[in-house]
Order: sequence, then structure tokens, then C-alpha cells
Amino acid sequence: MRNVRVRLAYDGSKFFGWQRQAGFVSVQEALEDALESLLGDRVTVHGSGRTDTGVHALDQTASFHVDTALGDERLLHALNAHLVDGVVLHALETCPDDFHARKSARGKRYVYVVWSSRFRPPFGREFVHWTCAALDLTAMRRGAAHLVGEHDFSAFASAGSPRASNVRRVSSLHLFRRRHAIAIAVQGSGFLYNMVRTIAGTLLEVGQGKVAPDAVGTILASRDRAQAGPTAPAAGLYLVRVLYPPDSGEFP
Amino acid sequence: MRNVRVRLAYDGSKFFGWQRQAGFVSVQEALEDALESLLGDRVTVHGSGRTDTGVHALDQTASFHVDTALGDERLLHALNAHLVDGVVLHALETCPDDFHARKSARGKRYVYVVWSSRFRPPFGREFVHWTCAALDLTAMRRGAAHLVGEHDFSAFASAGSPRASNVRRVSSLHLFRRRHAIAIAVQGSGFLYNMVRTIAGTLLEVGQGKVAPDAVGTILASRDRAQAGPTAPAAGLYLVRVLYPPDSGEFP
Repeated sequence: MRNVRVRLAYDGSKFFGWQRQAGFVSVQEALEDALESLLGDRVTVHGSGRTDTGVHALDQTASFHVDTALGDERLLHALNAHLVDGVVLHALETCPDDFHARKSARGKRYVYVVWSSRFRPPFGREFVHWTCAALDLTAMRRGAAHLVGEHDFSAFASAGSPRASNVRRVSSLHLFRRRHAIAIAVQGSGFLYNMVRTIAGTLLEVGQGKVAPDAVGTILASRDRAQAGPTAPAAGLYLVRVLYPPDSGEFP
Repeated sequence: MRNVRVRLAYDGSKFFGWQRQAGFVSVQEALEDALESLLGDRVTVHGSGRTDTGVHALDQTASFHVDTALGDERLLHALNAHLVDGVVLHALETCPDDFHARKSARGKRYVYVVWSSRFRPPFGREFVHWTCAALDLTAMRRGAAHLVGEHDFSAFASAGSPRASNVRRVSSLHLFRRRHAIAIAVQGSGFLYNMVRTIAGTLLEVGQGKVAPDAVGTILASRDRAQAGPTAPAAGLYLVRVLYPPDSGEFP
């Protein structure tokens, strides 16, 4: 048996999230099905973490153990040939045996994409969150600055599986505009359930002048989910990179 | 009755082309249906030209005569509220009575989008033409240069409705690369049936080294459709602007 890690992209609108669940097509199951149809064995694929229904990935990482004589390059091509539409592996390599996509992860980077235009765009409803509101990017950036650093993010977490601590470290949070699109790019040590979407929903309220930029600091300090903005829709969210320590090896 | 012109965008994957035809949903019919449900009258909407099934528009122009007390701004909003998903008007104005979206047009600009990557992208199969081939942009640009100017483009026209002349003027033809995407942007006085897609299909063969850049001049001179490359798929094609003479008035 060898330990293999893959990097993959998927269209979240075509799956009921990452995690396998009976009766719903998931990305994890798609990978496990492809492995089974190729190698004949049922193996468990570990993702770096779950993504919800509708959430996309440009660069998710997963790992699994397989017993095959196929080299990495052949295995990569063969798996892509067996995968259903909407998910593609773009890299695969044999990795140290103790590498685990979730346990070894040290951080993640997400981008939330908002489309701000007077009329609903005819394209890509599954790929952006559209708003007809004009957004004040300067105000959004001022609000975002309050979230950078190590904080208790309870105010930005949906009720989910209980955790020992809601303290997380956001190492960067940047906003970019390109014509009608605004991207909210956030990197951190880890994220609570719906945390990125709640940050996006709150910054959208700041951008519309409904919430003052400095109120974001007050919301954070409250640790009260009811103080933050709504959870922004899944369609705008992209997992764009999973970060691992340098000693887990090079992985292009 | 007043003459109105609109600028609109549509997702070509959701329509069987521009032109109304019994039993198939078209963009023209969508507009005529929206007008009828709003104003109670069946009017004919004239587009600047047809687009085929799967071909997108970022900025198509259409015109029609209506009898309504609604001002331009109200009419624009009301029509968007009545339009089906996948098509949006982004501008509307009352125009000179002799303006006709097709007859007044003096040129068009199209962009053909190619996605060049080793594996099929998981996103946007309806919005780009994917190729796993590496493309030599320099060669494609050298090939493209042969097509600029006034020429008989018979070699790049699919058999369609017969025309008095196959001479057209291509005023510019530029290629851009941004990461995996290559855009072929072409502007001209008018285009024969499938001309942009055949130019794209031919330049893709040049980019893969199957056709020498200078052979594009020979293909053009042959006036023989069999000499050019295949018609590239509809999914990559976008109508991005229809050009009108300055005296037809300002239209933002």
C-alpha cells in the first residue's frame, strides 16, 4: 500500500458537498468510485476538510492509500478518465506515509466572489453571488482589517459540530475589484463552520453602508452570531489552496 | 409607436440561438414574449444578426417598435422583470425612427475563448472551448495577420444562405493569453456564416503546428472551405459589440 495525495478542482454546483452521504452525490464518493472502478478496491479518500453543497474548489487536497503498480503519472490520467463530470485532478503524487490531507493541513485560503451590477448577470449564477447594491470597497477593507489576527470567531460561526475552541488565526484578508467582480480573499489556520461566508455576508453589509466598518470589531468582540451579517450564499465561495508544512514535501 | 433599441447579454447555452423557430426557445422569442406579457401586443424584435445555438452575447443590439406610455428607464426594468433566465437587457433607449438593429449595423466584434490545459476544466464547459493541446500563440498571431483586411472569405464560410459576395473586411484580429485562456478577438464589417468559428478552428491548427502560419494566406486565397480548419465549437464564441455609425446617436 502506498500513500497518495492529489490536488483537485470541482464545480460545487454539481455535488452535494465534499462528504459522502447516502443518496446524494458527493465529491468524496466520486473519487472513491473512480478508484474502485479503476483498481477494484474500495478505499477511503480523506479531504483536507468538507465543503458544503454549492461551494467550489480550485485546489482542494485529498489523500488515500492504494495498492497498485501504476506509477503516479499513469494513475493521475487513469483516475481522471474514470471521474465524473465536474471534478478534475490536476496533480497526484506518492507522499510520505504519515501525510494525511486533513490532519497535516496547516491552513487554507478561500476566495469569495461577489458580482455587483444593476441587473442580474445572464451568466454564471452558480459561480458568483450577485448583488444589485453598489459596494464601497474602502469601507469593506476597513471593516475587514478588524478580522485579521488571532481571535475568537464565535460571532462568525454557524451552529455546527461543537469545538473545543472557536479561536482561529486569520493571517490575511484582502479585497480586490475588477469591473463588476469583487473578490474577498482570506487565508487562515482554519475556519469555523460557515465562517468565510459569514465574513462575506457581514462585509457586504459594510459595503452597502448598513454596518459601519468599525462595528466589525464590536461584532467580533461580542462572540454573538446574531450580531454578524447573514451567511452569504454558497455559489460565491471557492477553496483555492490548502497549506501544508514544508516538511511534508514539495507538491507542485 | 416609438422605436426602441436595447443592448443585451445572453447565455447561449440556454437558447436555441437568436432566431425564433417553432418549438425551440430562442432569444428573439424570449424578448417578444416579455414585450407581449408586459404590453399586451405581439411585436417583432429585430436583432443585429443571428447567433447560433450555444453562442453567447455580452452585448447584442436589437430594436423594435412599441406603443407604451412607460419611459425608457421604467420599460428597461419592467422588461428585465419579465425576461426568462439567461438573458438580460443592460440598456434601453428610444432611438431615431429609421434605426434598425440589423440594417443600420456597420460592424461587429466577436471574441472566441479557448481554454488550453492538460486536463478538462471542471467549470464552464458551456463557456469555453477546451483543448489539451499546447498552443503556440506567436504562430497563431502570424497566421491571423493574413486575415486582416478586405478579402473574399469563402474558405472560412460554411454553406449557408447564398450571398451576392463573400468579400468582407476584417479590421482587426488580436490574440491574448491569460493563464490557461486564449482569446481571439476579431472585428469586421460583417461575417459570413460560421466565419469566426472557422477562423478559430484554423488558428487552433496553426497553434498546434498542424498548419504553418503562412499557409493561412494560401487557404484564404483558395476560397475553398475544405482547405481551412474545422468549425470550432459554439461554446467558445461571444458576440461582444455591434457597431453603428455615429449619426445613429449616442448609446451608452
